[in-house]
Order: sequence, then structure tokens, then C-alpha cells
Amino acid sequence: MTENRVLREALSALLGDGGVTFSPDHHLDDLHDETLHPDPVEPFAVTYPRSTGDVVAIAQLATRHQVPITPRGSGTGLSGGATPVKDGIVISFARMNHIRTINEQDHVVVVEPGVTLRELDEALKPFGLRYPVYPGETSGSLGGNVNTNAGGMRAVRHGVTRQHVLGLELVLIDGTTMRVGGPVVKSSSGYDITQLVIGSEGTLALVTEVTLRLSPRFDHTATVLIPFADLGDVTRVVPRIVASGLEPSILEYIDLLTMAAITKASDLELGVDPEVVSQTSAYLVVVLETRTESQLDTDLAALATLVESANALDVYVLPGGAAVRLIEARERVFWVAKAAGANEIIDVVVPRSRVPEFLDQAMRLGETYGAFVAGCGHVGDGNVHLSIYQNDDDRRAAMLHDLFAAGLALGGLISGEHGIGRDKQAAYLALTDPAVLALQRRLKLAFDPTELLNPFRLLDDRARA
Amino acid sequence: MTENRVLREALSALLGDGGVTFSPDHHLDDLHDETLHPDPVEPFAVTYPRSTGDVVAIAQLATRHQVPITPRGSGTGLSGGATPVKDGIVISFARMNHIRTINEQDHVVVVEPGVTLRELDEALKPFGLRYPVYPGETSGSLGGNVNTNAGGMRAVRHGVTRQHVLGLELVLIDGTTMRVGGPVVKSSSGYDITQLVIGSEGTLALVTEVTLRLSPRFDHTATVLIPFADLGDVTRVVPRIVASGLEPSILEYIDLLTMAAITKASDLELGVDPEVVSQTSAYLVVVLETRTESQLDTDLAALATLVESANALDVYVLPGGAAVRLIEARERVFWVAKAAGANEIIDVVVPRSRVPEFLDQAMRLGETYGAFVAGCGHVGDGNVHLSIYQNDDDRRAAMLHDLFAAGLALGGLISGEHGIGRDKQAAYLALTDPAVLALQRRLKLAFDPTELLNPFRLLDDRARA
Repeated sequence: MTENRVLREALSALLGDGGVTFSPDHHLDDLHDETLHPDPVEPFAVTYPRSTGDVVAIAQLATRHQVPITPRGSGTGLSGGATPVKDGIVISFARMNHIRTINEQDHVVVVEPGVTLRELDEALKPFGLRYPVYPGETSGSLGGNVNTNAGGMRAVRHGVTRQHVLGLELVLIDGTTMRVGGPVVKSSSGYDITQLVIGSEGTLALVTEVTLRLSPRFDHTATVLIPFADLGDVTRVVPRIVASGLEPSILEYIDLLTMAAITKASDLELGVDPEVVSQTSAYLVVVLETRTESQLDTDLAALATLVESANALDVYVLPGGAAVRLIEARERVFWVAKAAGANEIIDVVVPRSRVPEFLDQAMRLGETYGAFVAGCGHVGDGNVHLSIYQNDDDRRAAMLHDLFAAGLALGGLISGEHGIGRDKQAAYLALTDPAVLALQRRLKLAFDPTELLNPFRLLDDRARA
Repeated sequence: MTENRVLREALSALLGDGGVTFSPDHHLDDLHDETLHPDPVEPFAVTYPRSTGDVVAIAQLATRHQVPITPRGSGTGLSGGATPVKDGIVISFARMNHIRTINEQDHVVVVEPGVTLRELDEALKPFGLRYPVYPGETSGSLGGNVNTNAGGMRAVRHGVTRQHVLGLELVLIDGTTMRVGGPVVKSSSGYDITQLVIGSEGTLALVTEVTLRLSPRFDHTATVLIPFADLGDVTRVVPRIVASGLEPSILEYIDLLTMAAITKASDLELGVDPEVVSQTSAYLVVVLETRTESQLDTDLAALATLVESANALDVYVLPGGAAVRLIEARERVFWVAKAAGANEIIDVVVPRSRVPEFLDQAMRLGETYGAFVAGCGHVGDGNVHLSIYQNDDDRRAAMLHDLFAAGLALGGLISGEHGIGRDKQAAYLALTDPAVLALQRRLKLAFDPTELLNPFRLLDDRARA
């Protein structure tokens, strides 16, 4: 038998019917994530393990045959990080989608990596608890969230994935299984492997279980829409809101074009006076959440006073239905941009006070490279999401390099939450300190000495076969 | 010249007068931390660099001569992690104690590692900002805090050091300098080296600059003292307070013996009715902080209702002076235990709902091993601090092993914030999964291939010369 034949039979025997597909019989959805440049590749096999034991066996086979592995959650990533490689094995965690335990007393949940944010939220509602991290896409899996250190709209108050993962079960490429961290909120007991794996984009270890910290749900909430005539005013008021102690749970800016696109796509009427709309160039969206109704009223009044002193055109407290729909529409901004023909979505993060400068530079670079740029973002965190419209690949690549360089020069980073993956790899490697890259490569080899895990992504710029 | 002579002259030339001491002319304070087993050792040299450049040069000399380095902040550690080794070089960061920048807009501060928590707090007050992490000892340095992932009383609301360090400047043992992270609150841009170094107890890299996230100060605060007849009732009410959404910034328990000792040591009268005192076996201390006075009143009423339904004997809102002095007295609990002759201080962390079981087991182990056990702790985080009184080294070591094992069996970890250092190394190595230890050792070698950084601590159980 050829080696491929041996591997094929071993995977079939291990995973049985429905547990593995082989090229060319794959489900097309398993061959890409949500990158705007899917460029699908047929891997040798796509596997659907049901247990940690299955994952161990697949890893051992991959090591024995020196075949690369691409792990994938639900494929909602935006950077091409979960796109397969030819002759490789995809591990889909779609069938490892059980919630193992919900501990109401400790506010801790243990999930398999394929559980989605939506499934988790539904399961937690009866307990009055929630997992507060809120990336736009609720069909995203927790395993994927861990691997990109997903952020989202509530990070300004509640932090990102990194602040909510207490422990992991990991399978190394040689099949070694280990638990790191645990259902406790602090540790000074050795190197924090949990934290190192978070954001590693599937290149260090296979995540087979995640222990998460939960929060109580708040009973009282208000969504406030604040139009401004000047985008600079929006971004300048943000540090003042953060300094106020109002602790908004969402603090987003949406530029005029993006707002027009998402409200149209969602058929959403926000009730803003047309006279005000005609003067508006950007909106701030603020969500307040409190324990009591009276505190909500007090906080809303304080917020209104604050933004009115900072050139707000008006202040709209949205009715419940419109509030929910606006946040949902904001979640769908990626799909709207994609439908509109955007060629790239980026999410540079800069210190929040530098957002105005970064946006100015983005607009100037758009002019230089003949690109159209529209945006919105987690402005409380300085995390700016821009849609870039420029069909020419070379011009776009040059513009992206300059945009990332501009973000770095302002003290920022290339990606706040989407990851580097495949799409931003060239810029990341060109713009990162070689000493940092070298150290990261040594860390990679400490986990995966023959570089089989999610190859050709993030740090790995080996020439592809 | 002998090799030692060469090294001595190089260090003298580099650091000048006041920049280095050689054995036997060291300052005694540099030869120990606050472990209860100081066992001081004379290192070859104690150095006081003034700049990152000095640290680079010292690291290069250490590498060239293959001499170990022990980094130290202000020496307030409790695990012997900063105790020197014979023939080694201590790097004291006492002279790298400048605050480099305070960014009011972004709530970010950049400090040298020798800055103490007290110095930082004083510098931030005029800006209405604070670094919210609050380990008891305000003379602790930020560099030391980073290396132990210091926690403290406010972690229940604000998190620990790990959640507040945004970036680091690092010097590797070969002199390579790098910056990781930055003044931004989120990242999905490569492996998070910042997080890996936090809590690594000086074994991976030399921290020469720390970028920290700040928070607004709250204007309204109340400290509530709640006596209970039963320690179990104290620990059982804690998950209910956390679930309430009241978000206390401090949630501590203090057992009767510890309270008696610290109030006596501080000559502190709390005004608790003697009739109530006679029934009390433990106290809960809750600090609430709010943006408005009216919210403070509302929250205090809600807290009182909650604890009264959970068997509280009474509820005392302490007057300002007594409140400050109680928290200060709680900070000094280590010194009181030390003065009373405690032989060991430990800080096991367990899931918060398991604290009652852990305390029961600790009491039983105390009986088994003939030890006296007194405690207090960050009960909102499940982080229990116990003073162990047992002079016999062997019996105490056996008891500690059993105590740590009991914590691990409840889903906990050996140390929540003090670290492993030297004192808990044997138990840590005996009780940790060998696969996790092996992976950590590979990570160590990725930073420090000849094992020169803080040797014989944490993972490193090589036989000493």
C-alpha cells in the first residue's frame, strides 16, 4: 500500500462513517474560512473527531506520516487562518460541540471547542449568566475564539477572550494531552501556557476543551445613538467617556457610509431627524448596562451632558427593538462590506487617542492608492475596522503595508482581533522586529518541532510545495 | 587575571561607583526576599543598572562568563524567588525607578521595573487615575509584580497583574532587547510573549520596562464589615455576592484569630458590639466603589439585605478612618503572622465555591500534623492565605504537600499570586503533570538555552554546586 493509502485506512477505521471525508468528496464549506480571498485548496482529508481521544489519534497519525494539520472551528475567521493545505488533514471540531459543565456558583463553564457563541449564550440564559465576550459573529466557535483571541463590541468593558479563558485541554502534535490552568481566576504556578495558546491561530496545539469565566447578566440596559458632524469629534469624545467611570459595555463608531449601508441592508429606521442626518458624518453607539433602573437613568443623563459638551448633534436613546436591531446590523457589517465588493477587511488597533490620526492617514492612503475606505470600529479600544475597496492586488498590498506601518508607528498592532493568518502574513513578517519573530519561532518549535500544525500561516513563511 | 577578576573589572567599569557591590561587601537587604526561610547566600556581585543598556551589558557578560543572574525588584516576594545564588550576579532594579510616561487620554503608563506601587499611585492621583491592582505590599515593585503576576485584594473586580500589563521591554540572557505588546488593549498579532513572561518569576527574560493599563478612580466608596458566627456561612455567601452584580472591589474573609491579631497590632477599634464579637468566628470585608453617592446608598442597602438573609450577625459600614485602617491592617497580616512565629505562608487558589471544603481540609491537616493554622484571603477569588505554625521542617513539608494536593484535587492551583519560587518548588514539581513540566522546560530553553536566568527556582531542580 502507498503511504496515503495506509493513512486513509487508518483515519477511516478510527473515525468511521461521517467522521472523515477524502479528496475530492469534501464538503465545500470546510475548505475556506470567511477571508475575502478564499482560494480553496483540497486537503487530503477532513476529519470530524468526537472526542479528545480521536484528536490524539489523528495527531499521532499526522506525526507518524509527517502530514500537516489545519484545525478549524466554525470557519468564521477573516484572515485565511483556517484554510486547508494540499495533502494535509483538516480537523473540524464541528462534532465536539458539547457543553460539559456549567458551574453556577463559580461562574465557570467548560465547553468543547466546537460549541458556538450562540449555543453557549442560550445555555447560560436560564442561569442569569453570560459569556460577555461578543465578537460580531455568534456562529463562531469557542475554539476559534480562543485561537484568534476574539474581541468584539463588549471588550471596552469586559475585555477580550484572553481575559475569560481560565484553562484549556490541549493535544500536542505528538498526541500528548495536558490540562493547563483550571477553573480558578488567578495563578502564579508556572508559565501560563493557556495564555500562550490564546491567539496562536492553531499553530501551537489543538484545543480540545475550554474553561471559561462567566459574568452575571445585567438587568437594565440602554442603547444610545449619538450623531456628530465630524468624525474627529467622535473619536475625541471617546477617551472622555472612558474616563467618566460610566463603564459603557459597548462604545462603537460607525461612519456615515457604513451606517447607511447597514441600515439599508437591515431595513432599519433609527428615527434620527432628517435635518440631523444631513449634518452627520459619523455616529457613536454607546450601550450602558446597570444593576438598577435608577442608576441607568442617572448614567444616561451624565452621558448626555458629556457628549453634548463635545459637539454631539443630538442624543437618541433607542427603543428596545431598534436598539437590538442596530447592534445586530453592526454585527453584519462584514457581510454588507463583502456584498458591496470590499477587497479587504482589516482591524488595526492603536491607542484610543490616536484613532483620529490613524483614520486621517487611512483616508490619505486611500487617495494615494485610489482606494475607497469605509469604516466602523471598537473605538473605545482603538480597534478600527476598515473595508478597503481596490481591485488591483499589487496596489492593495502596497496600501495595506503602509496602513499597517502607520498603525505600528502610532504605537499600535496589525490586528486587534482578526489575526494574521495567511492574508496578513507578508506584512506581519516584514513589519515585525526580527528578534521577536525569532523568539516566536523558537516557541513554535517547543510545541511543534516538525512544524506540522497549521503550516504556512502566521510565522511560517516556508515556500509551499 | 582569573575569570572572576575579569568579570569584576568589567562590571566595575560598566556600572561605576554605587553601581555594583562584590562579596562580601553587599547590602544585606539584597540577599533575601520576604520568605520566612531567608537562608541568605552571598552572590558574586549585586548590580544596580540605571538603564536598559546597562542590563544588556550585564546579560552579555553573564552569558560570556556563564554566570547565573538573579533579578530582583524590591524584594517583597514571599517564596524565595529572588534569593541569590552563590557565584551569581544579582540585578537589582532599584535605580531603574522612573515613570517614563503617563498618558492621560489612553489611561496608559510606562514605568521602569523598579517603580513601586506606592510611587506609581502617588504619581497617578493628580490625573484621577489609578493602577487598580492592589497587592498588600505597596513597596513592591512593578517588575516584581509582573514576574509573580501579583494579585491582591481588588482582583475580584479588577483582575490581577496579567490583565493590566499591555506591553514589556525585555532583555534576553544573550543581551537581545525587544518590545512586545504595546499601549493597546487587545492583540491578535502573533504569540503573546508579554503574557508568557508575566508570572515567569524572572526565569525567562529581564523586564526593563512595563506598559500598564490604568482605570479611573471612583469617587464614592464604602467599607462594610460583616461578622458571621460560622466560617462556612462567610464562604457560602461569597458566590451570592459575586452573582448579585454589585461588583465589590474588595471581598475578603478574615478569621477570628487573624482579625484579633491584626486589630491588636494596629491598635484598631472597629466598633463591633462586644455581644456580637463573642458570637463571631469570621468576618467578611466588602468594599463597594461607585460613580455616584446615590448608587452607593442603593448598593449598600442591597448588600445588607443579601448578607442578612445569609446569617450575618450584623452589618457595619465603617467610618472613613476605620475603613482605611482596616484595609491597611489587612495588608500587614503577613508581618503580624511573621511576628507571631508563623513558619509558612501559603496562598492556594481554588474555585470560590470550594473554599469551605478547602478550609475544612486545612483544619483537619492541621490536626493531623499538629500544626496551628490561621487564615484570611481573597475569598471572592477563592485565594486562601494560610499561616502555618509548625516548627518541625519534615512535618511541615509533609503537611504542605498534602495541603497543595487537596487544593489541586478541588480544581485549584498551588499559588494564586505568591509564586512557586524556591520554597514551593519541591511540592510543585511533585504535583504537576510531567507533560506540562516538560513543555515548560522547552519554553524556558527557547528563552534561556544555558539556564542562567534565576536558576534553581520554579522548574529548575538541577542539583546545586
